[in-house]
Amino acid sequence: MKTPLEDLKKLVGQPVAAIDTPALVVDLDAMQRNLSRMAEFSRKHAIKWRPHAKMHKSSALAKLQMQAGAVGVCVQKTSEAEAMVAGGVYNVYISNEVIAPAKLARVAELAHQVAAEHGQLAIAVDSLQGVRRLAHEMNERRRGGHGAVIDVFVELDVGQGRCGVTPGQSAVDLALEIRKHPPLRFAGLQAYHGRAQHLRSPRERREAIATVVRDVRFTRQLIEDEGVTVGLVTGAGTGSMVCEAASGLYGELQAGSFLFMDADYAANERDPAQPQFEHALFVKSQVMSAGLLHAVCDAGHKSHAIDSGLPKVLTLEPTGALEFAGASDEHGVLKPANGNQRLPRLDETVWLIPGHCDPTVNLHNVLIGVVGGLQNGRVDKIIRVDARGALT
Amino acid sequence: MKTPLEDLKKLVGQPVAAIDTPALVVDLDAMQRNLSRMAEFSRKHAIKWRPHAKMHKSSALAKLQMQAGAVGVCVQKTSEAEAMVAGGVYNVYISNEVIAPAKLARVAELAHQVAAEHGQLAIAVDSLQGVRRLAHEMNERRRGGHGAVIDVFVELDVGQGRCGVTPGQSAVDLALEIRKHPPLRFAGLQAYHGRAQHLRSPRERREAIATVVRDVRFTRQLIEDEGVTVGLVTGAGTGSMVCEAASGLYGELQAGSFLFMDADYAANERDPAQPQFEHALFVKSQVMSAGLLHAVCDAGHKSHAIDSGLPKVLTLEPTGALEFAGASDEHGVLKPANGNQRLPRLDETVWLIPGHCDPTVNLHNVLIGVVGGLQNGRVDKIIRVDARGALT
Repeated sequence: MKTPLEDLKKLVGQPVAAIDTPALVVDLDAMQRNLSRMAEFSRKHAIKWRPHAKMHKSSALAKLQMQAGAVGVCVQKTSEAEAMVAGGVYNVYISNEVIAPAKLARVAELAHQVAAEHGQLAIAVDSLQGVRRLAHEMNERRRGGHGAVIDVFVELDVGQGRCGVTPGQSAVDLALEIRKHPPLRFAGLQAYHGRAQHLRSPRERREAIATVVRDVRFTRQLIEDEGVTVGLVTGAGTGSMVCEAASGLYGELQAGSFLFMDADYAANERDPAQPQFEHALFVKSQVMSAGLLHAVCDAGHKSHAIDSGLPKVLTLEPTGALEFAGASDEHGVLKPANGNQRLPRLDETVWLIPGHCDPTVNLHNVLIGVVGGLQNGRVDKIIRVDARGALT
Repeated sequence: MKTPLEDLKKLVGQPVAAIDTPALVVDLDAMQRNLSRMAEFSRKHAIKWRPHAKMHKSSALAKLQMQAGAVGVCVQKTSEAEAMVAGGVYNVYISNEVIAPAKLARVAELAHQVAAEHGQLAIAVDSLQGVRRLAHEMNERRRGGHGAVIDVFVELDVGQGRCGVTPGQSAVDLALEIRKHPPLRFAGLQAYHGRAQHLRSPRERREAIATVVRDVRFTRQLIEDEGVTVGLVTGAGTGSMVCEAASGLYGELQAGSFLFMDADYAANERDPAQPQFEHALFVKSQVMSAGLLHAVCDAGHKSHAIDSGLPKVLTLEPTGALEFAGASDEHGVLKPANGNQRLPRLDETVWLIPGHCDPTVNLHNVLIGVVGGLQNGRVDKIIRVDARGALT
């Protein structure tokens, strides 16, 4: 049975050793350093940051980020936006398309809810139907010409091959359509190149984003030629953010993973312009079976996502370097690595660095925040993943 | 925000079209047929079945299986066992090693709890430490020589390369150790060959299990030579179960995936002896962005696990054959397949068959059970995934 939140709160103040395994643990000291580095980076580049809350799915962490200077958060799902608002986060951008009328009704409801809190809701679109349905639902809630206004970004497909219109005339058509509807405000362009995030060399990432910048500039000009101001270009992830920040085009960075860093982002060759973000998210696991040639820990892919590769094993004394050689649902097979001869013993703690932080966090109800390090620290707080499983 | 269970219950009686996306949907008619086929198979082979609840993580489905003839369920985690017992399932086998004393205390507590309900708890071991610690915790709860007895299986590594001792003398040592402790009952051997489940041809699976059977027989003989009865050999999954059932050695089948079937098991070439299990688990998703060469649905790998490959798309009219060409966290990219030229339109419903049912179910709080088919049926019940996220 899931340990209720109240039971988990009893962990606060206890040593890290008291954390049952497997558990998702945040090194709060490292997280705070990542947060400070991001805040400093955005100040230096005079660029807004709106970190993606799809990564941590926690309204508490969203508020922490806003206290550090973030203008709000991004989410991908209506239900994530609802969780953020319920948690007291009133500046939320659904950086994704919503097309189902029932969901758009919820979006319109949220737009009014955050307006009442002096906040602002925003959303992305890539179809005329999407714009018109959104306008219909927003209009349904207007009384005598009064009501909330929602910010609407036109999404461009800048190389991801997923959502968004092709840069060019389609974006103009959408911008003009948005302007026909009083409860919608054309806020600018969404231009996120997901594939560029994990190009391994800084040169490849710069080249990819240079192409994006060219396409977005061209599209922005087309829209402004119609007398319509493009207020903001928003996008970027932890992999490419230094390129968008240096572009002179983007006004807002959406990077989210910087807060925790994962094994996949750490595999990128760092751009010298990029802050040195540290791993802050770990799966604490325990060896529960020890063979002659391998050991088995109690964390499989129900406790960490493997879509971006298997986790790395943090090397701490007395455990030597280990390879996470294979995962099944509830088990991880560990083998010695880098010429190390020693296998961990039964009972030993093994710390895993997840391959991909976003879907890993989504597997857990809580994050266990520790201060003072993973070996000798203590539990400082239990952070609810309040948008966990928010899929719709 | 997650839709509360009470809101979801309002769906009961409504048409399938009313289900918001993405959602995990069970075709209850197909599930019931799978259940009947499994019950019939076990009767025909006079073999017990104890389906793995790590797959569905639902005490309601566990009870349904027991009503159909299952002797109980398997789980992998102490917390899963707790969820089952809390849900009224009192015959539970933790088919995995538990080594942390704090967890073994919970195991011992559960053993007493199910005994009070005339049930039985069982567990696997593969180390002397594990046996001794379990005995210690069980003894802690005995008063005046009275208390519950826990069934203990010695796990053999029969080719999985994960937990379990090598077949042979190590298993004898463990069986003898178990017999030293009155609250432990040596119940037999756990011999599950996970890797054999997905060997694609029946011949390969038969050869793999033939080797397993030889190793287990040899080990059983060694133990019985010590005057110790091996009461039961337990194991098997949906891929290989016909081999274990025909072995004359196994007394219990642990297959779990047969209930829902997934794309990976369906990719096996079916053994003629195997019941024809049908897909019963689907992700209902909706196209929320439509490009010229692809469409994008609202289900990514936060709604279905991709550790065993991307989902397949169920072909239903009017949608022609589609390929699920790529997943990100919240999106699925769809392309026409098999010479089909037509892409689904914005709004269209797309049904996905998950690659791997176990970790897919673990992403969802509920299963939405429908009767009368996916196209014209209605919602019959909301099934809680009460052990979702039960990791410890």
